[in-house]
Amino acid sequence: MSTHELIERYWRYANARDWPAFGSLLAENIVYEVPQTRERVRGKEAYIEFNATYPGAWQAEVMRIIAEESRAVSNVAFRIGAEIAVGISFFELEDGRITRIIDYWPEPYEPPLRNTAHIERYDT
Amino acid sequence: MSTHELIERYWRYANARDWPAFGSLLAENIVYEVPQTRERVRGKEAYIEFNATYPGAWQAEVMRIIAEESRAVSNVAFRIGAEIAVGISFFELEDGRITRIIDYWPEPYEPPLRNTAHIERYDT
Repeated sequence: MSTHELIERYWRYANARDWPAFGSLLAENIVYEVPQTRERVRGKEAYIEFNATYPGAWQAEVMRIIAEESRAVSNVAFRIGAEIAVGISFFELEDGRITRIIDYWPEPYEPPLRNTAHIERYDT
Repeated sequence: MSTHELIERYWRYANARDWPAFGSLLAENIVYEVPQTRERVRGKEAYIEFNATYPGAWQAEVMRIIAEESRAVSNVAFRIGAEIAVGISFFELEDGRITRIIDYWPEPYEPPLRNTAHIERYDT
């Protein structure tokens, strides 16, 4: 299985709440981190539980996957009802399993004033 | 030049304020977007000016690059004095030049309360 396919399955199994299949992609000693909140989850069982208990009928739509052999990134639209959050996940792999995930959830903000005429604002 | 090397040069030339070298990596019709602010800059000259006028003695330290042939992502620590922002940039390339950049600047936030015992908070 290519790393690209593995990351596709990661999100497919998460969306399906198929935790045994999801867990089969993870190393026993996986570490998950969210630098924005300094949250960390260690170990496969804990990380499955972290996902399985995430509230809401969420679905992640994969917008983009970029993969090398042992590293990848995914960019997803994470939907809970009418709300959409952008998720960016960096993955590290060893022996075909995910050993590390670093997750970012960038939120909208007002840009600083800039001394250039070249910036447009677009509608979402 | 590999795509990985091209992205390394993108940041090296930006840090050096070497705008001719920086511009040589960009397609004439490059589009730059920041989904969090809905900012958009179109065209090579405008995008160079956008960078050249960015205030402060900023330096981007490349933490991670993941590259396929025509797509890549970089994760940088963007330093202005004592402040550090995390930047995540998705690149699209055509004919060896960058045609599109989608930039994210995820900021710290307080995590929601979660019904799981498995989440640690770590120090930065």
